[in-house]
Amino acid sequence: MRLHVIKIGGNIIDDPIVLNTFLAKLKDIAEPLILIHGGGKIATKTAEKLGVQTNMIEGRRVTSGAMRDVVMMVYGGLINKNIVAQLQAIGVNAIGLSGADAKVLEAVKRPTEPIDYGFVGDVKKVNSVFLKTLLEAGLCPILAPLSYDPVHGVLNTNADTIASAVATSLSTHFEVSLYFCFEKKGVLRDLADENSIIKDINSQNFDSLKKQGIIYEGMIPKIQNALKAVKEGVESVYICQEADLIEITQGASLGTKIS
Amino acid sequence: MRLHVIKIGGNIIDDPIVLNTFLAKLKDIAEPLILIHGGGKIATKTAEKLGVQTNMIEGRRVTSGAMRDVVMMVYGGLINKNIVAQLQAIGVNAIGLSGADAKVLEAVKRPTEPIDYGFVGDVKKVNSVFLKTLLEAGLCPILAPLSYDPVHGVLNTNADTIASAVATSLSTHFEVSLYFCFEKKGVLRDLADENSIIKDINSQNFDSLKKQGIIYEGMIPKIQNALKAVKEGVESVYICQEADLIEITQGASLGTKIS
Repeated sequence: MRLHVIKIGGNIIDDPIVLNTFLAKLKDIAEPLILIHGGGKIATKTAEKLGVQTNMIEGRRVTSGAMRDVVMMVYGGLINKNIVAQLQAIGVNAIGLSGADAKVLEAVKRPTEPIDYGFVGDVKKVNSVFLKTLLEAGLCPILAPLSYDPVHGVLNTNADTIASAVATSLSTHFEVSLYFCFEKKGVLRDLADENSIIKDINSQNFDSLKKQGIIYEGMIPKIQNALKAVKEGVESVYICQEADLIEITQGASLGTKIS
Repeated sequence: MRLHVIKIGGNIIDDPIVLNTFLAKLKDIAEPLILIHGGGKIATKTAEKLGVQTNMIEGRRVTSGAMRDVVMMVYGGLINKNIVAQLQAIGVNAIGLSGADAKVLEAVKRPTEPIDYGFVGDVKKVNSVFLKTLLEAGLCPILAPLSYDPVHGVLNTNADTIASAVATSLSTHFEVSLYFCFEKKGVLRDLADENSIIKDINSQNFDSLKKQGIIYEGMIPKIQNALKAVKEGVESVYICQEADLIEITQGASLGTKIS
């Protein structure tokens, strides 16, 4: 059976109208799906209002104790339950989960050397048996970017890597497609040209795309992550715009396919 | 099979040490259980910091749109996931849920007349089939005081009435005991005397206790609520202190029993 694992980030979450339009379309996906949401800007804004300092190192959020409370509130509460309620309203039987719930995402706290990111975790184990049970019962799991460590509790965790770990772990039970929705229509050959989408990336052409400088910076770990998922059993990975998602699930050749 | 439905409120939630001690003891309950938590003072404090005004009418919180965001964050995120993570750490396989998740608690928004409480809901239907599935899978559901209305979304909801509704709905599948943990050792005959616990309240002696003025004010709806649950299939209801809970589940005659 097919399974769609979909990751959405700030460009969708931060705009209530974009989010609502996106969620409404999920109803058109006939097969089971799991949605993973990132955090967006709401956490930073809420932290600011609460007087909790936002501290970034190399583009990554340092999660102090106070900041962990904020992400538990915003990711685990506000964003997650908002998505669940909107999906329920259109007849999708959603269930929101953090990594601690039913130990869905077990993690280890990242070592404090060389950089101490605080309460940040790397996923170690996905409770795929439980997720499979939910999917078979017709439920649609909505995962917040929070994992769980038995020693340190709830940990702030990158949504991209959660999506990969979930897709990979479920690939023994399902034929899994993984989608990373982002602001562009795909991985672009030329950032100035929205139509220069690279249709296919695989382990063969990836190296040469890197060498030519076409794929660089933040896109490199994203694609490495996707290639790893494919190697470990995920059928195909797409980097695409949320507007094209439904058509891709139905077989349209849009976005960048990593296989 | 027995099932324990336990409601805890601010006197436990607001103190991290009391909460941790309480949760650690839940491990000693051999039978399945469901925990319902209230909100405590954290929501009011967080609202204050966020510049969201707290407005109370007759001791009840008016839930504006901004206040709903706060309770979704604090009840659905911070408190709920905190409890789940602490239980997971001691080997209790907890799963946190709001009323929107798997439509566990369907509600209707309270009419705006005579008093408009805003986004406040009254529970209409409990998804007891789903809760039963979780319990049979060895999971321990932790319910936040948030229900769900298909028209108005997530609604702020009284935790006492959620506990009663959940206990009642599951009484067709289980032999249910319902516990309201509060700051006193039971319903007292004389508020000045901690030892003047009324051991048993039933529909026979309730009227006379009311007429004598022994039971009054906020305790009246609490006991009416409990008597209704008993009438509708709940085996027994206890009003007790959290310190006595485990012993009561094991048969000790502590607290006030309503039957």
